[in-house]
Amino acid sequence: MRRLRLGMVGGGEGAFIGAVHRLAARMDDRWELVAGAFSRDAGRARRSAAALHVAPERAYAGFREMALAEAARPDGIDAVAIVTPNSSHHAIARAFLDAGIHVICDKPLTTTLDDAHDLVRAVAASGLVFALTHNYTGYPMVRQARAMVAAGELGAVRVVQVEYAQDWLSTPLEESGQKQAAWRVDPAQAGPAGSLGDLGTHAHNLAEFVTGLRVESVCAELTAFVPGRRVDDDAQALLRFAGGARGMLWSSQVAPGNENALRLRVYGEKAGLEWAQEHPNQLRVTPLGEAPRILARGAGALSPAAAHATRIPAGHPEGYLEAFAQIYRDAAEQIAARLEGRAPDPAALLVPTVEDGARGIAFVAACVESSQRGGSWIPLEP
Amino acid sequence: MRRLRLGMVGGGEGAFIGAVHRLAARMDDRWELVAGAFSRDAGRARRSAAALHVAPERAYAGFREMALAEAARPDGIDAVAIVTPNSSHHAIARAFLDAGIHVICDKPLTTTLDDAHDLVRAVAASGLVFALTHNYTGYPMVRQARAMVAAGELGAVRVVQVEYAQDWLSTPLEESGQKQAAWRVDPAQAGPAGSLGDLGTHAHNLAEFVTGLRVESVCAELTAFVPGRRVDDDAQALLRFAGGARGMLWSSQVAPGNENALRLRVYGEKAGLEWAQEHPNQLRVTPLGEAPRILARGAGALSPAAAHATRIPAGHPEGYLEAFAQIYRDAAEQIAARLEGRAPDPAALLVPTVEDGARGIAFVAACVESSQRGGSWIPLEP
Amino acid sequence: MRRLRLGMVGGGEGAFIGAVHRLAARMDDRWELVAGAFSRDAGRARRSAAALHVAPERAYAGFREMALAEAARPDGIDAVAIVTPNSSHHAIARAFLDAGIHVICDKPLTTTLDDAHDLVRAVAASGLVFALTHNYTGYPMVRQARAMVAAGELGAVRVVQVEYAQDWLSTPLEESGQKQAAWRVDPAQAGPAGSLGDLGTHAHNLAEFVTGLRVESVCAELTAFVPGRRVDDDAQALLRFAGGARGMLWSSQVAPGNENALRLRVYGEKAGLEWAQEHPNQLRVTPLGEAPRILARGAGALSPAAAHATRIPAGHPEGYLEAFAQIYRDAAEQIAARLEGRAPDPAALLVPTVEDGARGIAFVAACVESSQRGGSWIPLEP
Amino acid sequence: MRRLRLGMVGGGEGAFIGAVHRLAARMDDRWELVAGAFSRDAGRARRSAAALHVAPERAYAGFREMALAEAARPDGIDAVAIVTPNSSHHAIARAFLDAGIHVICDKPLTTTLDDAHDLVRAVAASGLVFALTHNYTGYPMVRQARAMVAAGELGAVRVVQVEYAQDWLSTPLEESGQKQAAWRVDPAQAGPAGSLGDLGTHAHNLAEFVTGLRVESVCAELTAFVPGRRVDDDAQALLRFAGGARGMLWSSQVAPGNENALRLRVYGEKAGLEWAQEHPNQLRVTPLGEAPRILARGAGALSPAAAHATRIPAGHPEGYLEAFAQIYRDAAEQIAARLEGRAPDPAALLVPTVEDGARGIAFVAACVESSQRGGSWIPLEP
Repeated sequence: MRRLRLGMVGGGEGAFIGAVHRLAARMDDRWELVAGAFSRDAGRARRSAAALHVAPERAYAGFREMALAEAARPDGIDAVAIVTPNSSHHAIARAFLDAGIHVICDKPLTTTLDDAHDLVRAVAASGLVFALTHNYTGYPMVRQARAMVAAGELGAVRVVQVEYAQDWLSTPLEESGQKQAAWRVDPAQAGPAGSLGDLGTHAHNLAEFVTGLRVESVCAELTAFVPGRRVDDDAQALLRFAGGARGMLWSSQVAPGNENALRLRVYGEKAGLEWAQEHPNQLRVTPLGEAPRILARGAGALSPAAAHATRIPAGHPEGYLEAFAQIYRDAAEQIAARLEGRAPDPAALLVPTVEDGARGIAFVAACVESSQRGGSWIPLEP
Repeated sequence: MRRLRLGMVGGGEGAFIGAVHRLAARMDDRWELVAGAFSRDAGRARRSAAALHVAPERAYAGFREMALAEAARPDGIDAVAIVTPNSSHHAIARAFLDAGIHVICDKPLTTTLDDAHDLVRAVAASGLVFALTHNYTGYPMVRQARAMVAAGELGAVRVVQVEYAQDWLSTPLEESGQKQAAWRVDPAQAGPAGSLGDLGTHAHNLAEFVTGLRVESVCAELTAFVPGRRVDDDAQALLRFAGGARGMLWSSQVAPGNENALRLRVYGEKAGLEWAQEHPNQLRVTPLGEAPRILARGAGALSPAAAHATRIPAGHPEGYLEAFAQIYRDAAEQIAARLEGRAPDPAALLVPTVEDGARGIAFVAACVESSQRGGSWIPLEP
Repeated sequence: MRRLRLGMVGGGEGAFIGAVHRLAARMDDRWELVAGAFSRDAGRARRSAAALHVAPERAYAGFREMALAEAARPDGIDAVAIVTPNSSHHAIARAFLDAGIHVICDKPLTTTLDDAHDLVRAVAASGLVFALTHNYTGYPMVRQARAMVAAGELGAVRVVQVEYAQDWLSTPLEESGQKQAAWRVDPAQAGPAGSLGDLGTHAHNLAEFVTGLRVESVCAELTAFVPGRRVDDDAQALLRFAGGARGMLWSSQVAPGNENALRLRVYGEKAGLEWAQEHPNQLRVTPLGEAPRILARGAGALSPAAAHATRIPAGHPEGYLEAFAQIYRDAAEQIAARLEGRAPDPAALLVPTVEDGARGIAFVAACVESSQRGGSWIPLEP
Repeated sequence: MRRLRLGMVGGGEGAFIGAVHRLAARMDDRWELVAGAFSRDAGRARRSAAALHVAPERAYAGFREMALAEAARPDGIDAVAIVTPNSSHHAIARAFLDAGIHVICDKPLTTTLDDAHDLVRAVAASGLVFALTHNYTGYPMVRQARAMVAAGELGAVRVVQVEYAQDWLSTPLEESGQKQAAWRVDPAQAGPAGSLGDLGTHAHNLAEFVTGLRVESVCAELTAFVPGRRVDDDAQALLRFAGGARGMLWSSQVAPGNENALRLRVYGEKAGLEWAQEHPNQLRVTPLGEAPRILARGAGALSPAAAHATRIPAGHPEGYLEAFAQIYRDAAEQIAARLEGRAPDPAALLVPTVEDGARGIAFVAACVESSQRGGSWIPLEP
């Protein structure tokens, strides 16, 4: 099978997440980057293309032009990666879906629930692959955790504790002109939520991914601790899951000493499990009444889902980029299977979908509403 | 100074916490146990006294008799330790306070807010020492944490995360006749809250002790996951502190893999700190923008408050019993100072008080009400 | 059974280890301190006795006088605790053994192999209990480790890694007059080895205690890194055990960042185990091909030997003092059994003996000789 | 700058380390794989080439043919990656050096000291880049450690503790036909040392890389614990460094519970540091008398050398593949600088060299000799 052809919208010089997407795409040698609308600034777009070995004629000024042009080429891109600020995801994704091109989109899916629902419909109508880069689901031990819950090793889940804490916005960094900070605290670009949209959506997705449960209603308190900040930099929520499990979710950008402290704990009738993103190769599993055991990526009798996402043997750590790459590898498998007219490897089907993304947006919307109402319980819109 | 004379109510053969109190009292050689009403069962009371080297004539059948008799002896007890189930704390404490005897009482203070307020008044009227064994405040690194917050090293506190998880009630252990389980899930003995009363009060106390802040209102969700259980075995709460800090509190007895996982994290404008009871000799401190540092009991330039609570040099761990003993050592200092007509060592004044206990009961009451109302925000009664 | 009567030699005002011994003796309420020769300085001895509630007439000026006087009293001491610098252990121990009094002696046993052998003979001749406070053997999880090796859970032991590192002598602290430092680096008081005698003997004892194997020969490199220091502050050795196991031992007082970092790792054909003194309530066990598991003191199905040394349930940490107290508790049981004419609890027989102490001195002697010969392999004298 | 052209010898279907090299080469988009002699089995070589998108005409049957052909092509490879068993490294490296092609070679350099010296001479004569994939030196926090020692932050180094333990050869896995095991325990392919050659050379290199010190002499004990095994599966050594530092090195393949437990600890007059490969994004630094601090990749004020090797911000872990890729990225920079006639980025010069490799072979030779002589001290050949 040839390498798949990837285009990218966003991710020009100096961008952060675009470079991560490219590296992730390269990791397993299933993709080659051949086109892009890297920046709305023409010079920057051109320089970016050159640095990325993209042919000048496939360095586009805008995403709509790109979608049309690539759709028309016999060697057009197989998929587009969307790595722009949140508020533009919807329009870009629609353009490529409409052009018949598969989409790999950064999270959160959109900034409004209407946009999210529109994309759900568009994907369904198109029959295309839509992969949302909730990249933490690409970690082998996260997939192991999911497999264990699904296999009933925890029994019925009772309690879910999930959090994602950072500290980089403890001060008004946005006022210094730092670009990453600036757009993330601007409601026009980031949407109505700050830490909750940026981090809380990952936490929500992770909790649902691992447990297979759905958050049904929330009671949330969103706070902007840094004076003048217009979106929350800390969000705290109680969660009710369908089926009766209870949970707590915390996202924060003002917790000194936390870098990317995404951490999930799940407790069931028969066992518990704990996973922390900063040491992702281990999974602590605690069967009731037995000694805690530390499962390690690549070691022992792990699930096929974990093995599928593993590149190298135990003890040699894989990291964030490998987990991110897993999304690209699995998306490639899904797309390649369509091109080849075969069923995809079932293990490649765990990639977060547009529906997962829409649930994330519904979660954010419910939390925002709950907080605005002074902390009432709000059901998630279906 | 002679050793102080201690009496005990409860704690007979087979009891758990009574033995801990005695060991704690013995640790620093400031107390000798000389009297007791160890059990309502006469034979058990007698056997307990003999085993504890307590003279037969000072092994009492009931606490009221004991209070009167000891108050009348020239060599009567200086203080009583109350180590009975929660619902009896109030009556016993009143009896000894009324007899003019200092009190060391296990937590939670009472099972009703009225009883708690009554004890606050009685203590104030008596002028006696009343020490509540929120024993975790006796850990040196907890006192270090408190000192650092008080000194402004964290700046204004923004976020408090506190939890206390266990797993021993994941199954209906109380149905097996296990005594420790049975009374803890019986509202008549334990009060209206289960995990919240047993564990959540410690968590609440720890958060307030370290931060110096007061919980102002709560939104809580109490759940009894084990079928048939009449009190919560899991409690989740959002906290609003006076002054604007926000927090989350979780207590659970159904979280497999957690033994006594009391853990506190506090984040301020300038730094954060983390402490976990199961590894109590370390305190993680994270000044914003600097490398996290691991402070250790006994090492380096810790606060006088931490040094005061330290017995042995760094690297040789102290544990639960030493922290518990600190309450007894400090109570002894407070009582000895009165006997000797001098001011006590200021470092000995950190012992939790009857007012702290009453705030704990108000916290429980507010959480129970919040949960009963489906998760509304409820202010704590002052 | 009454409390046993304890005397002490050494341990006056300002001493470190004497206070630890007293606290350890008090912990389980099996001993009362009634006599002492606390200091060669008369005023200090008297003040110490008063502070310790020891009657003035049982505060002795010298250990020989004390041994004779106590042996003559009907209520004389049951045992003596020897807590003086190393070089005086032999003479003091002999005096009390000759007077028919049981001995609890701090480590290392002596400073010469001849003295050690003499004590072995004297103990054998007397039939008395001789307990050596290799206190780390009192930790429940150390006893668990020993029980697991003895039960064959590791299979034949292949590799032993043991170390004990500190940092407090990284500078010439002894030149400042610090008393603890001064005697430890003085060959006349400490013996021919520095870190090796103070720490290495603990490491050697721990390795032999857990594995049940005997060090047969050594190749060692002793270094005094601090200029002018007359004994080693760092010792590194290769170990050959009888039966073919191989090992490495490191002791150091010049390793910044190490407080009391005693750590043992044992690897056998079928499993490994790891234990670290600074977090003593956990034992990492690694069956080959299975996930590592973290055994915890008080939890699950531990060995009777571990349960015997446990006071409180899992998750509430016990520490150094509790482990030290275990030596006193077990020694009390051995002595009480003799007084009562019964067999002692078998679980109380794990206390390190005079023979263990003599092996430690032989180990030191062999390492010193090895290092003096430029790193030759030297067999341990039997 | 165009991507550099890479050829590979070894690494066909089913090989382990070849795939790692390719992934490492791909990570930073500085290389494209265009040629290979992937296997001595023609079918396997052809299939490998196809799977790797290598043109059929550049899939060679043998490395000599490949060296000549590629040297003759105008678009010939810029460098070759040698990923075959140890015993063939010398001949292959010579062939490409003789053809004027830069070399990236897996470790250990050779199996004999003569071969190692021959390569040192050949590299010097050729003026070509020779990068040895002691990949652990590519970790940012290892480079940070090196920079801190070089800057004098530890003061003079006194003690070095280094180890690399695994458990996968605890049983005679080679007898099952497992290919990775088979060649590693075959002296004809692996050389005279087993665990020492495979793991100990990494440990030796890491110790020298970080400290900047040279091992001067060794006293070693090599053991084959698994019956019938012809090379050591456990090696223990005392190290004397030039300048007076002392160290211990342990390599093992029979330590259950260890996956790739490469761990380095360095203690100097003023501070210590600790690093463990399985959690590579942290570096524990312990200034004497201060609280230990945990430096993290990407955070705070790290050295330029660490920053150079960092791809993504703190808290998102990089792993083994990223560290391995650093060797490829730095080698690319060195080669590109020559092609472009400019000086390379100084930060790219930390790649282990042929001289480093020769010192590793001298270290192995000295240890083997020491062990054969029953544990004498043996100086390393210069």
